[in-house]
Amino acid sequence: MSAVAPTVEAVVDAAGGHVRTLMASLEERLAELAAGHGELLARHGGDTIAAGGKRLRPLVVFVAAGELPDDGGLGLIRAAAAVELVHSATLVHDDVLDAADLRRGRPTVVASAGRAMATATGDLLFSRAFAELARNGRRDEVRALSTASTALARGELLQRTDAFDMDVTVERYLRRCELKTAALFEAACELGAREGGADEASVGELAGFGRRIGLAFQLLDDVLDVSGAPERTGKRRGADLLDGTITLPLILARQRSGDLAGLDLREIADAAEGESVCDAIEATGALEDARRVALEMVAEARAALPPLSTAQLRALHLIAAGVVDRYA
Amino acid sequence: MSAVAPTVEAVVDAAGGHVRTLMASLEERLAELAAGHGELLARHGGDTIAAGGKRLRPLVVFVAAGELPDDGGLGLIRAAAAVELVHSATLVHDDVLDAADLRRGRPTVVASAGRAMATATGDLLFSRAFAELARNGRRDEVRALSTASTALARGELLQRTDAFDMDVTVERYLRRCELKTAALFEAACELGAREGGADEASVGELAGFGRRIGLAFQLLDDVLDVSGAPERTGKRRGADLLDGTITLPLILARQRSGDLAGLDLREIADAAEGESVCDAIEATGALEDARRVALEMVAEARAALPPLSTAQLRALHLIAAGVVDRYA
Repeated sequence: MSAVAPTVEAVVDAAGGHVRTLMASLEERLAELAAGHGELLARHGGDTIAAGGKRLRPLVVFVAAGELPDDGGLGLIRAAAAVELVHSATLVHDDVLDAADLRRGRPTVVASAGRAMATATGDLLFSRAFAELARNGRRDEVRALSTASTALARGELLQRTDAFDMDVTVERYLRRCELKTAALFEAACELGAREGGADEASVGELAGFGRRIGLAFQLLDDVLDVSGAPERTGKRRGADLLDGTITLPLILARQRSGDLAGLDLREIADAAEGESVCDAIEATGALEDARRVALEMVAEARAALPPLSTAQLRALHLIAAGVVDRYA
Repeated sequence: MSAVAPTVEAVVDAAGGHVRTLMASLEERLAELAAGHGELLARHGGDTIAAGGKRLRPLVVFVAAGELPDDGGLGLIRAAAAVELVHSATLVHDDVLDAADLRRGRPTVVASAGRAMATATGDLLFSRAFAELARNGRRDEVRALSTASTALARGELLQRTDAFDMDVTVERYLRRCELKTAALFEAACELGAREGGADEASVGELAGFGRRIGLAFQLLDDVLDVSGAPERTGKRRGADLLDGTITLPLILARQRSGDLAGLDLREIADAAEGESVCDAIEATGALEDARRVALEMVAEARAALPPLSTAQLRALHLIAAGVVDRYA
């Protein structure tokens, strides 16, 4: 299991027994969705869904809702499933673009079934996400999810456009993180809050919490790409560098090191050289700085929360902490 | 312009002045959507949307609605835009999978910007489709579109799985056509009918009309791949054969010709040899038979229509006729 699992457990404990039930129901629903739409989805999409991961975004949906709603959580489970399906769809498509062989230690769809199958599988997961959420019959929820999935695609476009561009600014980097990662956490919070019956002001505040922890999540991910981490076992350090993805650690390190300032990512010959660049970035202290930015965002996320029950607040704080504790 | 344009004109004439206005408003809305979601969508998605094509599916949405609804057609325009966006998204992704250079005589997104950009552009168009339709606030409409877009992806998966499999049956071929093509025509009719205020029985009947003309549309497309047609200028005959796509003309021809029965599509060396196979298929009379199946479906489509105004019936009949008159 990934290094984050204990944190998810702690959140579920803090949030109350109904979240444990919801997480179990979510797995059942995802398994149904994987089995219920043709043999090919069952094989490829099903593998993707079943491979799981942390189910962090569904957990955010559930915790953002607070108490169990009057419908017994039916609407919440659909919202959580929809968010996870969109997330899975983007992973499948990202793996196609990266021609990745492994994801979470298992063969990717593109590796096992080819580009065509993987592209169609991703499209199918997208479609099922909206079908699932539409069952809630709430226009504001569909809008929130489609805004997020638009952002994911725009973030991906931006990342590809900016690849190998050493002039990417911190501002532009953060904008990319907002699109690529934060938007879906934001939607997860919004969907949970709406299903939980929060008023419009609280929905907005919870959405802001989601956006900030999503940003912090991506920042830490980018730090982990340079520093290495247990949960990245099997993935070499510096994968982003080799892809030409400019991240905050690199931007900060370049401001402090003449060698790195002159670096052209295209000139990195192989993975071993990528790891040397990681060492050079680490030596500048840029990783600590990037972590501090992430911690600051988490603090802002917590500060922006509306008044909530003690149990819900505690669970949300644990989620926020887990996002930046992944290197521990 | 394509060979179908005169038919679209005839349909618009028959349906009444409000459809002409709706078609113009649709173009405006699509242009807005292309411009309003970031420079990268404006460039790549915008090109795709602007490149246009016949806008046959939006036309189906409008005609299925009948009279102009009380909202002045706002909901209809959103529905039509959503259907066209889903259609555009699948074209962009299909071009990625086929590594196609040209579509409608213009460079494809994948040709001009690469696979990564094209995959993300398709995802983005999908997302915007659901965002646009969600504005109507109708769960049944979102469900109809997500069912259709799921079908499109399943059809694409099925086509790739069955590629080069000479044992594909007529039944399996028709199932693929239903998923790949008919489902979106069905959704177009359903969305139009719902916005037009049709009762549930009529919605179902209009949806059935859409499904049947969609099937006929795909059948004719597959005939045109073998026979050649003006609207396919620039595309060589036999493209499906080279891709390993088994279509009705080939299935029928194999039943009549020992040479074709022994054919393995993998052994077709080049486009010239593909054209020879097209000639062999044509010589068996299979194209006439496939056309007859399509005509039969169009007749069934017309027969299944509910009672409607004379103008609406006339426009629907013209659409149905246009679907199979494309070789004329």
